[in-house]
Amino acid sequence: MTVNIIRIRPRYSECDPMGVVHHTVYPIWFEMGRTELLRMTGVSYRELEEQDILLAVVRLDVRYRSPARYDEELELETELKSVGRVKVVHEYRLKRDGDLLVTGTTTLACLNRDGTPRLIPELMLAPQPGSD
Amino acid sequence: MTVNIIRIRPRYSECDPMGVVHHTVYPIWFEMGRTELLRMTGVSYRELEEQDILLAVVRLDVRYRSPARYDEELELETELKSVGRVKVVHEYRLKRDGDLLVTGTTTLACLNRDGTPRLIPELMLAPQPGSD
Amino acid sequence: MTVNIIRIRPRYSECDPMGVVHHTVYPIWFEMGRTELLRMTGVSYRELEEQDILLAVVRLDVRYRSPARYDEELELETELKSVGRVKVVHEYRLKRDGDLLVTGTTTLACLNRDGTPRLIPELMLAPQPGSD
Amino acid sequence: MTVNIIRIRPRYSECDPMGVVHHTVYPIWFEMGRTELLRMTGVSYRELEEQDILLAVVRLDVRYRSPARYDEELELETELKSVGRVKVVHEYRLKRDGDLLVTGTTTLACLNRDGTPRLIPELMLAPQPGSD
Repeated sequence: MTVNIIRIRPRYSECDPMGVVHHTVYPIWFEMGRTELLRMTGVSYRELEEQDILLAVVRLDVRYRSPARYDEELELETELKSVGRVKVVHEYRLKRDGDLLVTGTTTLACLNRDGTPRLIPELMLAPQPGSD
Repeated sequence: MTVNIIRIRPRYSECDPMGVVHHTVYPIWFEMGRTELLRMTGVSYRELEEQDILLAVVRLDVRYRSPARYDEELELETELKSVGRVKVVHEYRLKRDGDLLVTGTTTLACLNRDGTPRLIPELMLAPQPGSD
Repeated sequence: MTVNIIRIRPRYSECDPMGVVHHTVYPIWFEMGRTELLRMTGVSYRELEEQDILLAVVRLDVRYRSPARYDEELELETELKSVGRVKVVHEYRLKRDGDLLVTGTTTLACLNRDGTPRLIPELMLAPQPGSD
Repeated sequence: MTVNIIRIRPRYSECDPMGVVHHTVYPIWFEMGRTELLRMTGVSYRELEEQDILLAVVRLDVRYRSPARYDEELELETELKSVGRVKVVHEYRLKRDGDLLVTGTTTLACLNRDGTPRLIPELMLAPQPGSD
């Protein structure tokens, strides 16, 4: 099981007139979680792109239980759930002091720069031992 | 069946290094669609808020088929699927020249300003005849 | 004098916990104004980019007099102030019912895709007669 | 002289089709710098707001020298330049490996919740000794 945790403080600009984080901001944080999870396993998404390997979100599901607010200290858990030949599934759990606020799931497909599907690169299938 | 269509041109700032609209932008457009659908049925979301009636997204699902790009002419269909005693469900279909690019579903809950659940206001249950 | 006016309704996600449009959103609207001003003079920024001609903002100044709010009907005036050999200056005036809310100025430089400066393309120097 | 440094990694969603950070994102980071500078001097902006003391940006100036890119390691220096009776001026310097990429200046005014101007609170005039 590959899990990564990042700490997040909501920005003022990420909060809306209800005084809470706008619901479209959480998926931006999920993407940050994915970037760090990849880095933890020795892969830089930036380097993937430079090799013309893109990971595009094809499915996003979010469940909002309780809102986050400006300047709170939050933890986002990102978990790699499955890596198939052409798809990768991640799950996300956003917590404040252990309380679950928001959960999410994304499915990514692997594409070439021109948008055609391609196989998931091997380096994502088998994280280097000791790389985390 | 209550359906509303708005026209959207992706902004430059809404597009990412892949050259396409970032996947977190579509739910922002969905919210614009809801605002206009409400207005079409004679309800201003801004006035709802002034009466201390908030509609919070509790669930969001998005399926990405094909990307939208900067400055394209798009149409977003927003459809009111169901209005329960405490929840409202909308569906979204984003199209370019009739081709379906992205679909989505949201579930909203009705809250007071302090975050406690409340019943959906009657004016949302029964759109005024002739109001659309 | 080349002036373009676009209508804008602030999105919910563009407003912050003060209940007003976040100050970083106005420059996004300025960019929309520039896109439409270009289009009015017969130039598509998208086509410019496809020809490897980029316009990068090198200077931005904004003065905030009075805030805009969610769902208000606003007008943004974009004016082309000067076109030099390598720089273009625009001014912006955001109004609500004729009242001036926010003003701004941007300076753009013309670049090739690799980031090297280049001359402003001729089509921006001399708008086609009758094109607006 | 009160200076604070925060580290920033540009998010994928903050970058545009030119492959660089969109020019409207830097002012969002400036606001993060201000929040941390305040915290360093023992003031929480969130607590200020809870006391009905708002700090609104009335002027923003940004100079773009060189673009930042996705996932780079950047440093943002935020400096308190002056605190008057009703206005506060900050300067910003964004650097990568010591190279200056973007500079900025903001002027903030102090407001009550209803938008009327008020004096800058004393706690912002005289940072507690030892608080940083």
